[in-house]
Amino acid sequence: MNNFNISKSRRLRSTPFTSRIEKQGVKSYTVYNHMLLPTTFSSPQDEYLHLKKDVQIWDVSVQREIEISGKDAHKLVQLMTCRDLSKSKIGKCYYLPLIDSDGGIINDPLIYKLKDDLWRICIADSDVLLFAKGIASGRNLNVSIFEADIDTLAIQGPKSFKLMEEVFGKEITKLKFFNYDFFNFRKNKYLISRSGFSKQGGFEIHVDNFKAGLEIYDYLFEIGHKYNLKPSCPNHPERIEGGLLSYGNDMHINNNPFECGFDQYVHLDSDVEFLGKESLKKIKNNGIKRKLMGVKINTKEINLTDINLLDKDNNIIGDLRSAAYSPTFDKIVGIAMIKIEFCKDKENFNMLINNKNVKGEICKFPII
Amino acid sequence: MNNFNISKSRRLRSTPFTSRIEKQGVKSYTVYNHMLLPTTFSSPQDEYLHLKKDVQIWDVSVQREIEISGKDAHKLVQLMTCRDLSKSKIGKCYYLPLIDSDGGIINDPLIYKLKDDLWRICIADSDVLLFAKGIASGRNLNVSIFEADIDTLAIQGPKSFKLMEEVFGKEITKLKFFNYDFFNFRKNKYLISRSGFSKQGGFEIHVDNFKAGLEIYDYLFEIGHKYNLKPSCPNHPERIEGGLLSYGNDMHINNNPFECGFDQYVHLDSDVEFLGKESLKKIKNNGIKRKLMGVKINTKEINLTDINLLDKDNNIIGDLRSAAYSPTFDKIVGIAMIKIEFCKDKENFNMLINNKNVKGEICKFPII
Repeated sequence: MNNFNISKSRRLRSTPFTSRIEKQGVKSYTVYNHMLLPTTFSSPQDEYLHLKKDVQIWDVSVQREIEISGKDAHKLVQLMTCRDLSKSKIGKCYYLPLIDSDGGIINDPLIYKLKDDLWRICIADSDVLLFAKGIASGRNLNVSIFEADIDTLAIQGPKSFKLMEEVFGKEITKLKFFNYDFFNFRKNKYLISRSGFSKQGGFEIHVDNFKAGLEIYDYLFEIGHKYNLKPSCPNHPERIEGGLLSYGNDMHINNNPFECGFDQYVHLDSDVEFLGKESLKKIKNNGIKRKLMGVKINTKEINLTDINLLDKDNNIIGDLRSAAYSPTFDKIVGIAMIKIEFCKDKENFNMLINNKNVKGEICKFPII
Repeated sequence: MNNFNISKSRRLRSTPFTSRIEKQGVKSYTVYNHMLLPTTFSSPQDEYLHLKKDVQIWDVSVQREIEISGKDAHKLVQLMTCRDLSKSKIGKCYYLPLIDSDGGIINDPLIYKLKDDLWRICIADSDVLLFAKGIASGRNLNVSIFEADIDTLAIQGPKSFKLMEEVFGKEITKLKFFNYDFFNFRKNKYLISRSGFSKQGGFEIHVDNFKAGLEIYDYLFEIGHKYNLKPSCPNHPERIEGGLLSYGNDMHINNNPFECGFDQYVHLDSDVEFLGKESLKKIKNNGIKRKLMGVKINTKEINLTDINLLDKDNNIIGDLRSAAYSPTFDKIVGIAMIKIEFCKDKENFNMLINNKNVKGEICKFPII
């Protein structure tokens, strides 16, 4: 695949950490929520192995946080998702699909409940701000909605616990998965959650103050050599193997939550009102025709244009949505949307890659 | 400025023309509406001079088209904009700011009225689809809203008229500015508008069929050598000089239409209902505190981090939002948001660029 430069402009927003990261040797970016997301420092393979063994800092400020506050805040957040939030608790984060009135997924954020009338939606790559504003205007809801000035550092990898303990004390190791709390470093207070877009464990530090962000960033690298800390970024093969979905890659507005395996978050029998409820009931009654599954493909390189999964008679049975070389399997792992009748563990398929027939195998998540 | 690669993924969508353009030597991309927008083939300077003299084809498929149809389509489109559309006509395009209920600009599309109950919103870089869907759900409007499968080629430059005449016949030269019509080439019908993101004249071909898109693309290059046709892309210095604003660069949701010089599109005295009407009335009554103006800066290179415009006492009087080297002026031209008391033609300012004091001059649009 050829390399192309990215043309920077103010529209592709930098983060407080961009200048640090560029000094640390970032090689490439993608764009996510109108902002720069680093994608390579050394190589995806080296970063994969390092992530599974040590600890990394990722600048994931692109996970913009949409703050919704006011009397109708809970109501608005609930309208947007099929997950019943009536028993949601302050101090917890919730992964949930946001759904339009047709039952399509418009984002899959992590939601932080700060108070009954104050929520932060930590978004994937689509303008949830505009969706929320549209609904609120349409319904005359009493809410305030804006993109908060918050930038996020993910600390990921098995040594993240020791590293974070050294900075924030023993307390932080007691934080449970998908819980958050406030922790102090020097004179600054940080909202930290036990979360992150990897399966290697870790935390996310939500920074609401430029200076406090740089202070913690620099301090982590000051002490991090003990843990072999390196700057890095979400790792494709690692997240694919873990079955962590990427909105815009693996799923989009034309997919419903059942196709994406989100059944546990679809609460059609609850009393709560949400936009896509009637549509999702129909979809469930009719049954889905395709579903996201893991795949392993017997090759080491693949093009973005290689998407068709074929059965033995060369009929298309699915389309590949994410793919990356996995050092663990020494082949390509991926996520594909597959016709429901082929959604079986160990089912075989073919692909035509560079005019060669290549074999593959469908598998469940996590890919092991 | 260092170069960084762009990491491609399916989330950064390709267009039907991407493979052609990569063979033709595109060097860099930006991302716009979750899609790849080519940004350099030779150099911005060469492309600037060529655009003013000959004719270029741009793959501007990133100008995604949100189709709104149904009984309440007109009502929904009107709710989103401060421009009175009650006298809008089929066959015309309308440039208009989309406004949220706080009076902030959420996009500045060109809107195509196809029927009274069928509109296409040709959007700048934000998810208007989600805003429209949010309002429609909130108000229970009878509409269908989706991103149409349409990709756009812009034919721009003084020789675009002769080139397009050779393909589509004399009729196309009669098309007036911001009008559209349907034209035939071989067995395909194309919606073509007299429009485009340059001040050099030209057309936009809206392609709703992959194969028909490649046919016209290839044919234009087959005959284009007579007109010195080249593949290119929207040109920053040219559009800055012309005062064509770029959403996300020059303005964003925290700006109102008065700050952006859109007064002629703000119809507060009309009878029509739109979301931001009350907010815009207040903003107008209070008067604006800043406004977008052109600037010329006495230097040939500038960094993205150089943003502060200073008065003679080094007080900040504005921030630079777009900037590019202009071959015409042999200096940087730009667009800046400037405190209202300094918004005068030929007003001077200072900037600190690479620790050197550089002079600049504020000017009206177009920058001449």
